[in-house]
Amino acid sequence: MNDKSYIFASESPRRKALIKLLDRSFVFTPSKSDEKLDRELSFEEAIMDIALQKALSVSGEYHGRLVLGADTLVVLNKDVFGKPKNEEQAYEMLSALSGETHSVITGVAMVRDGQHKLFYSKANVTFDKMSDQEIRAYIQSEEPFNKAGAYAIQGLAAKHITKIEGDYYAVMGLPLAKLYQHIKAFENNTLF
Amino acid sequence: MNDKSYIFASESPRRKALIKLLDRSFVFTPSKSDEKLDRELSFEEAIMDIALQKALSVSGEYHGRLVLGADTLVVLNKDVFGKPKNEEQAYEMLSALSGETHSVITGVAMVRDGQHKLFYSKANVTFDKMSDQEIRAYIQSEEPFNKAGAYAIQGLAAKHITKIEGDYYAVMGLPLAKLYQHIKAFENNTLF
Repeated sequence: MNDKSYIFASESPRRKALIKLLDRSFVFTPSKSDEKLDRELSFEEAIMDIALQKALSVSGEYHGRLVLGADTLVVLNKDVFGKPKNEEQAYEMLSALSGETHSVITGVAMVRDGQHKLFYSKANVTFDKMSDQEIRAYIQSEEPFNKAGAYAIQGLAAKHITKIEGDYYAVMGLPLAKLYQHIKAFENNTLF
Repeated sequence: MNDKSYIFASESPRRKALIKLLDRSFVFTPSKSDEKLDRELSFEEAIMDIALQKALSVSGEYHGRLVLGADTLVVLNKDVFGKPKNEEQAYEMLSALSGETHSVITGVAMVRDGQHKLFYSKANVTFDKMSDQEIRAYIQSEEPFNKAGAYAIQGLAAKHITKIEGDYYAVMGLPLAKLYQHIKAFENNTLF
């Protein structure tokens, strides 16, 4: 690990692939937080709080280094969709999303020792009406598992998504444009 | 080539990767049209017309088969941006897009013998302000070449893109959700 690397408390393959587009050196490490959603906060605050928990769970091991955490929420009519634990939950989530517009919010935390900066980015995503057969076929692909809201926008769900409003990369799991601006600010010593 | 394959008059690696998400069998073949933009048409009509030229340029070789063509336009303040031919043109395009919102329109043509169906899908894309150094670095990556508007939304340009409104896949070069609906209509004999 070179001294200029940043730390990313994530093991998500999607987030790892995305952050490479920022052209910086990152070290990945699993977060040790339990990712519990605080229901007393707004969705935006709650997801930034989880991102902060992730970053703080490992920052003690990396003194003086920039540590990132990120997490993503899918929200439909005030209901929060996490990762489906089984086929049944995936089916319920996808049936609910079918023909509707939902929100996706990704929160990011940037931590260095005692300092931190939080931000989020969001988008609205509209699904076409999916038939029962289409939902079942999508679940069979196994893509829904381990994904908030039971779908991957850049994967086999793409053919069912008619419209996006907002930050596409927040939907994928990491708001690249905002993160890039914040990292430049960090490098210019104007972030903290 | 099996009898159920569809034909796609495209050799774009991006379009090939996208159309695989539709879970159908496709044969790819280069189009033989000169892709000339008809300035007397609206942008939407003009790009559908080019998609049609592409499909028709090969459909004579595939009697009774469904043949697709597609093309993408980038439009900023009534100026059309095609593929940059050199660094200078890439620089001009990216400088113009910097800090602005532009439109991306993808037209699609579906042809079978004498019948055809045309449609398009579009999105507005907002770029952050990019510095001269950032534009030069992006051109050095060579990603801008061979791409309408001199950028790839899913590539190294991602960190400069703050917002999308509309069909993300139209920006990538193939409107998957609309195409999927049209292909289902074709298979149900309700398209033509």
